[in-house]
Amino acid sequence: MSDHIESHADDHTDDHGHVAVDGTVLDAELIEGPSVATADVAEYALWLGDDSLILAQQLGAWISRAPELEEDVALGNVALDLIGHARSLLHYAGTASNQTEDDLAYWRTEPDFRSLHIVEQPNGDFAHTIARQFVVAHYLFELYSRLRASADATLAAIAAKAVKEVDYHRDHSTQWVLRLAQGTDESRRRMITALSDVWPYVDEIFRDDPLTDRLEGTAVRPSSLRPAFDAAIAPVLAEAELEIPRGFVATGGGRVGKHSEHLAFILAEMQVLTRAHPGASW
Amino acid sequence: MSDHIESHADDHTDDHGHVAVDGTVLDAELIEGPSVATADVAEYALWLGDDSLILAQQLGAWISRAPELEEDVALGNVALDLIGHARSLLHYAGTASNQTEDDLAYWRTEPDFRSLHIVEQPNGDFAHTIARQFVVAHYLFELYSRLRASADATLAAIAAKAVKEVDYHRDHSTQWVLRLAQGTDESRRRMITALSDVWPYVDEIFRDDPLTDRLEGTAVRPSSLRPAFDAAIAPVLAEAELEIPRGFVATGGGRVGKHSEHLAFILAEMQVLTRAHPGASW
Repeated sequence: MSDHIESHADDHTDDHGHVAVDGTVLDAELIEGPSVATADVAEYALWLGDDSLILAQQLGAWISRAPELEEDVALGNVALDLIGHARSLLHYAGTASNQTEDDLAYWRTEPDFRSLHIVEQPNGDFAHTIARQFVVAHYLFELYSRLRASADATLAAIAAKAVKEVDYHRDHSTQWVLRLAQGTDESRRRMITALSDVWPYVDEIFRDDPLTDRLEGTAVRPSSLRPAFDAAIAPVLAEAELEIPRGFVATGGGRVGKHSEHLAFILAEMQVLTRAHPGASW
Repeated sequence: MSDHIESHADDHTDDHGHVAVDGTVLDAELIEGPSVATADVAEYALWLGDDSLILAQQLGAWISRAPELEEDVALGNVALDLIGHARSLLHYAGTASNQTEDDLAYWRTEPDFRSLHIVEQPNGDFAHTIARQFVVAHYLFELYSRLRASADATLAAIAAKAVKEVDYHRDHSTQWVLRLAQGTDESRRRMITALSDVWPYVDEIFRDDPLTDRLEGTAVRPSSLRPAFDAAIAPVLAEAELEIPRGFVATGGGRVGKHSEHLAFILAEMQVLTRAHPGASW
């Protein structure tokens, strides 16, 4: 089915709200936009697509392990949304090199992944997952809000859809941050630890790069999102009586394919079946 | 959030099609029906709820491992549907003993689970998951179709919703059975092996029990579903040129809490977080 694109679970559905199994529908944003991305735009789409893909794989693990059945469903829905965004972005990235989104997801090796270090940080306990989610969802909301005005019609259309979903992800993680921080002594202690463990990876998200300089008007300059991000999280942290952690800033390097040891394990899980049976026509 | 019931991801959603994080909405079927199940009805709801819960946990593992990104999304949606059904059924079961669905999911031990052996069979390769899914989805479709006419209004309402979703699950697995059986030599070989490995567990699904005898008109007698099940799968197997496997019939015992070694591992994964931090107010 790798030649079919169904980028958002919410959109290409049958009467019962499900993804069609053998649909051949192309998402509107992939029809409206140019059919082939430039090399620079493809690289940028790969950045964003990899972030969503890796985070989705991580969240998928919670489907069998969340502390409540309701949360199984909630995190599962977030994961499926992110896979949808990743498929759109990777599909578009692949147009520059005649590759499908499955080619890009399953057949690249670690140094070819462009994801940020924050998304490859371990699930940890539930508070770690929520802290990571809180940061990434707020970042993605600011990113897609701005990317809707991209000069690239395809990126703009993908962003216009994704922003509605990450707006919910932002709300979901915000409510959990408040709940954990204001819950028991134990849940508060865990929330503080988790925020402190995740925070070193925030800096990399907002670092500018020659690529985003070249793509001015098409891509969003990461540093330009930082003020809105800070302004959005400040009242939540204040209400939760959490301080922004100080301490070391991680080196980063995800955008140039330098990753932590975690990514290898994530990719191994994600790619094992497809690679074990190449061309098996699953 | 264990006092909030949001049984179907499709229903209690915000503007963007998501489960509300802190909603307090009760599903219609849980309001319309009697508020407390009888002991027999509770046991029956536990049977059905456990089947869906265990199968959902198993399918959740595919979110990071399906052979295609599209299939990640499809199996993920199936898993979330099943968690929804499980929540409704376990909530109703719990009314007889003043327990929440989370109490029942996370705090029972293996002998107290009532699930069929087929749902605890390992994911295996992708063909095994599809073979298991093909059998269970066809069974659940026949079950819920009939259960819509239950004398118990709550069970009837749960079934009326669930049948639409398992109809899609049935279609999804059917298309994969055909695709694998008619694909490459390797995919066909795997499909045949998988069907043969899963088949010994089909018999247990349709065994009658004193409980379903006592609940005539309220529960569905399992043996009464077998003709419709056989009639529904026969044309699929014929088109796929697959024969119904012969061979041994597994002993079963799931409905009285006798389980294979697999269930212990499934429960360990599912329950680890909640049990590690009892009352942690996650």
